[in-house]
Amino acid sequence: MNTISQNLPIAAIATPIGEGGIAVIRVSGRESIRKVSGCFRGKNLEDADTHTVHFGRIIKKDGRVVDEVLAAVFRAPKSYTGEDTVEVSCHGGVLVTQAVLETILEQGIRAAEPGEFTRRAFLNGKLELSQAEAVADLIHAKSIKAVDAANQQLEGRLGEHVKTFRQQIIDATAMVELELDFIEEDVEFANKDQLRKLLADVSDEIDSLLDTYETGRLVKDGVKTVFIGRPNAGKSTLLNTLVGTDRAIVTAIAGTTRDTIDADWSFDGLLFKLIDTAGLRETEDVIEAEGVRRSQQAFERADLVVYLKDLSLPLDAEERKEIAGFQKRAGNTPFLLIGTKLDLDRTPESDKNREISGTQKPVHQEQRLHYDLQISARKGQNIDALKKAMKQRALENKDYDASSLLVTSSRHRDALQKARENVQRAIAALDQGITGDFLSIDLRAALKELGTITGEITNEHVLDSIFSRFCIGK
Amino acid sequence: MNTISQNLPIAAIATPIGEGGIAVIRVSGRESIRKVSGCFRGKNLEDADTHTVHFGRIIKKDGRVVDEVLAAVFRAPKSYTGEDTVEVSCHGGVLVTQAVLETILEQGIRAAEPGEFTRRAFLNGKLELSQAEAVADLIHAKSIKAVDAANQQLEGRLGEHVKTFRQQIIDATAMVELELDFIEEDVEFANKDQLRKLLADVSDEIDSLLDTYETGRLVKDGVKTVFIGRPNAGKSTLLNTLVGTDRAIVTAIAGTTRDTIDADWSFDGLLFKLIDTAGLRETEDVIEAEGVRRSQQAFERADLVVYLKDLSLPLDAEERKEIAGFQKRAGNTPFLLIGTKLDLDRTPESDKNREISGTQKPVHQEQRLHYDLQISARKGQNIDALKKAMKQRALENKDYDASSLLVTSSRHRDALQKARENVQRAIAALDQGITGDFLSIDLRAALKELGTITGEITNEHVLDSIFSRFCIGK
Repeated sequence: MNTISQNLPIAAIATPIGEGGIAVIRVSGRESIRKVSGCFRGKNLEDADTHTVHFGRIIKKDGRVVDEVLAAVFRAPKSYTGEDTVEVSCHGGVLVTQAVLETILEQGIRAAEPGEFTRRAFLNGKLELSQAEAVADLIHAKSIKAVDAANQQLEGRLGEHVKTFRQQIIDATAMVELELDFIEEDVEFANKDQLRKLLADVSDEIDSLLDTYETGRLVKDGVKTVFIGRPNAGKSTLLNTLVGTDRAIVTAIAGTTRDTIDADWSFDGLLFKLIDTAGLRETEDVIEAEGVRRSQQAFERADLVVYLKDLSLPLDAEERKEIAGFQKRAGNTPFLLIGTKLDLDRTPESDKNREISGTQKPVHQEQRLHYDLQISARKGQNIDALKKAMKQRALENKDYDASSLLVTSSRHRDALQKARENVQRAIAALDQGITGDFLSIDLRAALKELGTITGEITNEHVLDSIFSRFCIGK
Repeated sequence: MNTISQNLPIAAIATPIGEGGIAVIRVSGRESIRKVSGCFRGKNLEDADTHTVHFGRIIKKDGRVVDEVLAAVFRAPKSYTGEDTVEVSCHGGVLVTQAVLETILEQGIRAAEPGEFTRRAFLNGKLELSQAEAVADLIHAKSIKAVDAANQQLEGRLGEHVKTFRQQIIDATAMVELELDFIEEDVEFANKDQLRKLLADVSDEIDSLLDTYETGRLVKDGVKTVFIGRPNAGKSTLLNTLVGTDRAIVTAIAGTTRDTIDADWSFDGLLFKLIDTAGLRETEDVIEAEGVRRSQQAFERADLVVYLKDLSLPLDAEERKEIAGFQKRAGNTPFLLIGTKLDLDRTPESDKNREISGTQKPVHQEQRLHYDLQISARKGQNIDALKKAMKQRALENKDYDASSLLVTSSRHRDALQKARENVQRAIAALDQGITGDFLSIDLRAALKELGTITGEITNEHVLDSIFSRFCIGK
């Protein structure tokens, strides 16, 4: 852990803005306790023990009471930031909270910038960088699985893995560099086979961690699920059926862009971002063309494609071709072909209408298409099965439990990938009998990449590790 | 103070719903500390001293971590509710906060109803009823003056006044009732003049307090300000000029009804609810008629009426009549007559146009109308003067400073009015030589009314007062 440094005090409202019973204003930094005491009537907070709470009033310089509050005192280094900290709980009105903050700022305290407390916590070694990132993930989590994944990272599980990798690579580097140091003495410290196995193991372990990224990403960001199909195939009905009574998250959280995302839906802890599309077809109409362009875009970015086909209508050759085209273009993206309106009778009357209106000859669809599921949203038939299928296909049957560590950030993935590439380059160099100093460059590059995940400074650590193993007084 | 009774534990999210750094879940009631300990991994909260904070994790029954939290322990009676209380600060995400609450509820704790903590605080004598009401006022305050007024009430200032009145009336009642008790012994305890003076003083003091209600209401709820005038008189321009850069409160707080209130605007700590109206004139058009109906309604409910007259246009006799009509109908409601577009030149050209289009003969307006102010919103002329005039007229020149006690609630006003009526009835009875038992009924009714303000039970207090003054062992 780094030494705690106390920066100039900062303050900010730490709770969401709005009306509630309580709001909390966090103040952190050098002399923050003394400064808050300056506008606090009650116990002298400077005499307060760490982790104690005190009732009092926030008072303007003219003696006016701003609010009755509770002030919690945390003394360095036993606080979130590692600095002296006061958390002031006031009444949770918009204006009164603002007034309390302003009164505190008048004591010579600066308004904090976004993330500044957590940045201080990181700089003071209270959190690793990946943990600091998990704090933000946790706050923005929109599904229980996302909460779980953020918690694993916040607990330092990713950091632990990265530290294990780094220690293994540091060991390898130490082997290689010791050899370099003693090269004139013709001492061969590094057992090459042992070194190769060590590096291959690290590479495999990084690979296993990287394997969790696709799931981690879906868990953290949600599964972009695109409903496609002809107009009236039942896309909106299905969307409404799924979202149904559970659409709280749509209304509770602002910032979902209405023109691309239609509804957030959670199933079994996993968030699906359901996107209803306009019919995908060629058109001369400018506005419809824009709709189709967006549908195409949504299709291309989808994590899961659900094609809906109205079972009560005949399948014409054109649609059959379209479906095959989508399946092909979806590539590795999971694709579900769903028959809808299973409850509708196919009466001779409607068959007749079809013959009148259709130019293509009806094809008996069951012979031609393999549906993943046939459903009726209206009657609720096979809806549960569809939900399960959506989750299984989205996660490609790879489910993880609450205690699984998932890589959820592309920054971490990139760093892990680069670290693995460097390790593999080192393995290749070893196999080709390239000299130790080149190996060392690759391994140090790998360490540096891993170090960016936890935010440690890597070079000094490598050096520390090497010399701590020498211990021959040189 | 009542004895503290610990009810079954309840829990609720106490901070506003949304994304923030911190959210707080409050748990209060019998065994709440033990129950929260059941899902808290860290120090055993049952061993924690009151007013101490402890870092730990909220854990599901299956061992899954829900969040890292701080738990603040408050032991009865030293808490907001008077009961054992735990306040859990978790990460301020919507979902994670909900998950922490659910985990706590799984420990056999009930979800709290709105206001239930404060109700318990009142029932446990931690707050008087008027203080409990001030908590809500403070949270909903939309201007600094409203914050100040709520704080005075929260500090118990209204309660103190009411207690003084009650004590005076109790003293009077004791005089009267002692006389009744000893009536057979022909002892006259009550000096009638003294009693009369006592009651007249109370009545006057209640009156002074009641006098603050009109201001208190405006301070708490805002000044409903209606802009009227002909189309294009500059109503919307003025509204925009006033609200200008200061319209934060319009966007920050939800729940302002757009169809009646156009903009919230604060000046010098006072909230004005500015209402822009449709031109008030007779019309055949159904929609316009509805607009006019609403304008009439707004006019009738206004706390301040601002009539705008475009100075660049001639005043016709019809408008002059209209203005006089409005002034008359406004009655006691403050009315400001404002000339607008002071910056516009009255060119011969526009005069000519007027003569062509107008059927009524132009009247030289300055001779006929007395404007409170002439302004130009576009050039900013006299806008500051207008703001000051609006505040002065709205409060009818009665301003109060931050430490003034204002009656802001109609419940309190009603109770005070009834109490005063009863006191005056007692005075009248006294003057008419009506026997003490009737006086006693009036005074007890007054006490009961006053008691409803602070929420005390009045009868026992009256008895206590009488007997504590006797002390002759009877």
